[in-house]
Amino acid sequence: MRSAVAVFPFLFFLLSGFVNGRVLPESTPRPSPDAAAAFARWLVSQNSWGVLSTLAADSGGAPFGNVVSFSDGLPDKGLGVPYFYLTTLDPTARYGLKDPRVSLTLSEYSLGTCGNNDPESPLCSKITLTGKFKLVDGKSKNLVSSWPKDHNFEVYTMEIEDIYLINFFGGPKPLTVDQYLKWKSS
Amino acid sequence: MRSAVAVFPFLFFLLSGFVNGRVLPESTPRPSPDAAAAFARWLVSQNSWGVLSTLAADSGGAPFGNVVSFSDGLPDKGLGVPYFYLTTLDPTARYGLKDPRVSLTLSEYSLGTCGNNDPESPLCSKITLTGKFKLVDGKSKNLVSSWPKDHNFEVYTMEIEDIYLINFFGGPKPLTVDQYLKWKSS
Repeated sequence: MRSAVAVFPFLFFLLSGFVNGRVLPESTPRPSPDAAAAFARWLVSQNSWGVLSTLAADSGGAPFGNVVSFSDGLPDKGLGVPYFYLTTLDPTARYGLKDPRVSLTLSEYSLGTCGNNDPESPLCSKITLTGKFKLVDGKSKNLVSSWPKDHNFEVYTMEIEDIYLINFFGGPKPLTVDQYLKWKSS
Repeated sequence: MRSAVAVFPFLFFLLSGFVNGRVLPESTPRPSPDAAAAFARWLVSQNSWGVLSTLAADSGGAPFGNVVSFSDGLPDKGLGVPYFYLTTLDPTARYGLKDPRVSLTLSEYSLGTCGNNDPESPLCSKITLTGKFKLVDGKSKNLVSSWPKDHNFEVYTMEIEDIYLINFFGGPKPLTVDQYLKWKSS
């Protein structure tokens, strides 16, 4: 899990309150909607929060979405894989540990680059990463010293299995996980 | 379904592009976190989009979150029940019609009223409404004339069964659906 090590310092930075939403440097311009991998990676790297959906173990597996912060790495050096810092005092981490099937959903609307387009318009892009939730390791406790120690926050990630990207008319963009993960900025 | 009739004009207004996110009049100030019902109704009425999570029928019931616009009524006259305008060309409506269990998740971060608080901080409020998805009626087609007619957009809603509200330290606020729905602004 070498990529996680690279992400930790940024996660600390992000969650410490120094970086909030759009204060992140916007050094990467919005890619062309046709460049599906580049676009998806941009959307994931530019966002700092989203909704992580799990199956509610205590409600017969009903879907439960929750607001989470995440990072895929340092700005412009992200690897496309989201990392979360969660406590099992919240249902999301508990549910994800019982049934690892999750999805992470992000909207371009959060970035302020949708102009006058409605958040549901295909011109305001959105992405859902579907996959398996997992704890990164047992050594990630107390990563952010300002967060309560007794809440046992730990770093989690997801193994991406499918990508649902809408960034223009015409339905979801064809994009494999391999294309997404192997994409590199030139 | 009388409440739906009241919502239709606003949904039209919202989706026609005249109202976008924070252009909505902010006539209601942020309630005290202790006033759980007032706070939840405020958070729902002030937001115009969120993530609707369903169970992916074609993926063995894995959770699938999707960005949707919604309205609970005219500004300051909302009834707390979200209405959506969706097409079954998107997976979300299809999944919701197969298995009605859904959740709608909203963040105060979208409203710009979280100050320097991280979206995951309890000081940046969030709400998840859990319940059953349903089609309002068969007469809601072509409600928004500028949206493509052949996509068969229709009005859907959800019957709220549970409310998960975080708006301060100390875990979810105790709040029944009845308290939420019966709350009235004084």
